[in-house]
Amino acid sequence: MNTAIYPGSFDPVTYGHLDIIERSAQMADHLIVGVLKNNTKEPMFTVEERLEMLREETGRYANVEIRAFDGLLADFARDCGAKVIIRGLRAVTDFEYELQMAQTNRKLAPELDTIFLATDLRYAYLSSSIVKEVAYWHGDIRAFVTPYVAERIREKI
Amino acid sequence: MNTAIYPGSFDPVTYGHLDIIERSAQMADHLIVGVLKNNTKEPMFTVEERLEMLREETGRYANVEIRAFDGLLADFARDCGAKVIIRGLRAVTDFEYELQMAQTNRKLAPELDTIFLATDLRYAYLSSSIVKEVAYWHGDIRAFVTPYVAERIREKI
Amino acid sequence: MNTAIYPGSFDPVTYGHLDIIERSAQMADHLIVGVLKNNTKEPMFTVEERLEMLREETGRYANVEIRAFDGLLADFARDCGAKVIIRGLRAVTDFEYELQMAQTNRKLAPELDTIFLATDLRYAYLSSSIVKEVAYWHGDIRAFVTPYVAERIREKI
Amino acid sequence: MNTAIYPGSFDPVTYGHLDIIERSAQMADHLIVGVLKNNTKEPMFTVEERLEMLREETGRYANVEIRAFDGLLADFARDCGAKVIIRGLRAVTDFEYELQMAQTNRKLAPELDTIFLATDLRYAYLSSSIVKEVAYWHGDIRAFVTPYVAERIREKI
Amino acid sequence: MNTAIYPGSFDPVTYGHLDIIERSAQMADHLIVGVLKNNTKEPMFTVEERLEMLREETGRYANVEIRAFDGLLADFARDCGAKVIIRGLRAVTDFEYELQMAQTNRKLAPELDTIFLATDLRYAYLSSSIVKEVAYWHGDIRAFVTPYVAERIREKI
Amino acid sequence: MNTAIYPGSFDPVTYGHLDIIERSAQMADHLIVGVLKNNTKEPMFTVEERLEMLREETGRYANVEIRAFDGLLADFARDCGAKVIIRGLRAVTDFEYELQMAQTNRKLAPELDTIFLATDLRYAYLSSSIVKEVAYWHGDIRAFVTPYVAERIREKI
Repeated sequence: MNTAIYPGSFDPVTYGHLDIIERSAQMADHLIVGVLKNNTKEPMFTVEERLEMLREETGRYANVEIRAFDGLLADFARDCGAKVIIRGLRAVTDFEYELQMAQTNRKLAPELDTIFLATDLRYAYLSSSIVKEVAYWHGDIRAFVTPYVAERIREKI
Repeated sequence: MNTAIYPGSFDPVTYGHLDIIERSAQMADHLIVGVLKNNTKEPMFTVEERLEMLREETGRYANVEIRAFDGLLADFARDCGAKVIIRGLRAVTDFEYELQMAQTNRKLAPELDTIFLATDLRYAYLSSSIVKEVAYWHGDIRAFVTPYVAERIREKI
Repeated sequence: MNTAIYPGSFDPVTYGHLDIIERSAQMADHLIVGVLKNNTKEPMFTVEERLEMLREETGRYANVEIRAFDGLLADFARDCGAKVIIRGLRAVTDFEYELQMAQTNRKLAPELDTIFLATDLRYAYLSSSIVKEVAYWHGDIRAFVTPYVAERIREKI
Repeated sequence: MNTAIYPGSFDPVTYGHLDIIERSAQMADHLIVGVLKNNTKEPMFTVEERLEMLREETGRYANVEIRAFDGLLADFARDCGAKVIIRGLRAVTDFEYELQMAQTNRKLAPELDTIFLATDLRYAYLSSSIVKEVAYWHGDIRAFVTPYVAERIREKI
Repeated sequence: MNTAIYPGSFDPVTYGHLDIIERSAQMADHLIVGVLKNNTKEPMFTVEERLEMLREETGRYANVEIRAFDGLLADFARDCGAKVIIRGLRAVTDFEYELQMAQTNRKLAPELDTIFLATDLRYAYLSSSIVKEVAYWHGDIRAFVTPYVAERIREKI
Repeated sequence: MNTAIYPGSFDPVTYGHLDIIERSAQMADHLIVGVLKNNTKEPMFTVEERLEMLREETGRYANVEIRAFDGLLADFARDCGAKVIIRGLRAVTDFEYELQMAQTNRKLAPELDTIFLATDLRYAYLSSSIVKEVAYWHGDIRAFVTPYVAERIREKI
């Protein structure tokens, strides 16, 4: 597998995301983590902050690159010269949405394929929204994100 | 089956909808496609535009009528003299929502029944929102909607 | 809808099946209940007994006919001059299996379509196997099958 | 089971909620129904009105207490001295969301456990939003809520 | 909660079962683990061996009793004076089957209720069959069962 | 991705399997298709016949090798020097079973990861059992398997 893309919002990056990045970096020669500039939802962190946190947490992987993108994932993949998209799967509802995106992307860019990795069981029910919800009410988020990200969240609240 | 209703938002009509309309028109003596005047979501097309596109694409079926409605589907069915509602099923999440609506409608109007048709596999993961998302980023939507509808979407963007 | 087929094993017929038959008989001009001669599973009732019980319980519907079949459902439908297959849906696992059969049948006989009816909530978790299991242990099956069928089951055990 | 919590929005309380409350009250020595002060969604009823309706409808259970809360459910449970959270399960999508919350709560408060009750089939597809939608269009909601709650909804519309 | 039953085949008992037993024993005054004498499937262990292993592994809980049963679960519950059945939930397919059993049991014994506990994530995909399959091929089963049970399995193979 | 394994029964190989093989062969440097010597189910084809058909149909991919195996998949992967297992996903029930196997394999061999590919929509409901069932009743299987495999099936029946 030459170049692969792992796209997401990463608002903020959790241990679940980091698990997928670590495993993907072992499979792909070059892994691009694509941070979506989502304009519709109100994010907690700006794209720049999200890029910064991801770079901090993935610096030790030589073949991982962090980039922002907007527009269609198929177009971003083409720009990157990537043939493979990587997605984590947690639950059945994930699965259906992800299948929909994968099939749509194959229509838009037939040369582009999507592979799914099952989220590690320890993070099977973890999401960025839950982390933010718990943090908002001053709950303990150390089981969900790295100390560095936990600190950044605390600054925001 | 005398009169049947196929309700939806059709914002805009896709090949998936047209497949269900064609198959339903073969089962029912009279098929009414009901376009929901949805007030809560911001549609891309007005109700009039959606009616117009549906009429353009279904003109060749003698027994298909296109009508707008708001309020409860059970009330609209009664107004139309319809005993059967037709719904397309794509995936598991569809299935649960559709079951909920079907059971609620039977409580509200016991004489009203709902039948489900499995979406053709080619359109199994197609939705109006995906078409709009792809069109917004200038992606190719010709696999999803007719040339006429594609043109109308392009005018909007 | 001219002729429709409602296929199954009906070993034995339950209130859930009878609910689907009653609702289908209102939609189709002619409804054929097809009893599968399943050779792989060991049935409780012979095909003849299953036909007899169905005829007893559906005699009051003038447009319902009970017939046995083996082989491919698509071939049976063609023999009957039926264009529509009717299936009841109870749960998500049903849904996936049924979708698989519907899509396979459309490949084998493109003129043949399948419609699904949601099982009435009162029978949403009812199956012939559960009835037999409960009857085997002398449990009360009157909520699941008609008095006549209950009597026939009792004779078998 | 000493003290248990049944949390929710109850906007408004339906027959489905009342079924879970009645069954839970038989299992727990002390049952606290926790009404979430949800700040993000626009409720139909204020927290005070929701508390009032619940008190009216559950007055006959000596061991049931109605309380409002905001913040993390795990913190509310600790304040109440409760070790058990009770949740109703209707469908597969419920199931996944509920599992996510249960696992998150065990991370936040390991001494806290969650038990699930299957919603009675009669209310398997009932939700507060459907009740409000039907009421908004002047549909008949007597199968979904008590006469008292139906009256309160009518006043709002 | 006075007396509760946790039924199963326990062929053999896994860490997943023991997690449910431990948590249930904290909720119920008296917990009966019911070992099903399943006659249709060929078990690895006799009922006596399964009772023995469960007694060995749960001896430290003063309020847990291990008993064998056959016939309908509803009848066994009545014999035990239990009003509550406890079941572990792992995945969506579990969920549907369990709902079916719970609803059937409420029909057979309306005074009997079923509560579900979400399996601990560490054991979310663990089953007795997988343990036996892995053991059969001399794989390492120490993550799945206690040392004592592992030894008993080894003796069988 | 260096060496990857795509395991299965392939009794017989379908267009669905061939689609996964073609896509996997583009991702992995070396792809081993592992044919399981399943002893419990009665196969239509011997392991030798299944190997032969796969070799015939995949001869044009220079980096694909066909091998038989029994025992634990984790042991076979180790023998092959493979770090990645590839599995096709069709539906929700597939998804849960596959997740179970993937998580079990990570326990048995932590260095071994599993990736999932979504089955092409044209084959989303295709399985070897359906092919055999249709063939048994002399249905047309040309949409499901290659002409060569169709011929081999015909010889068997």
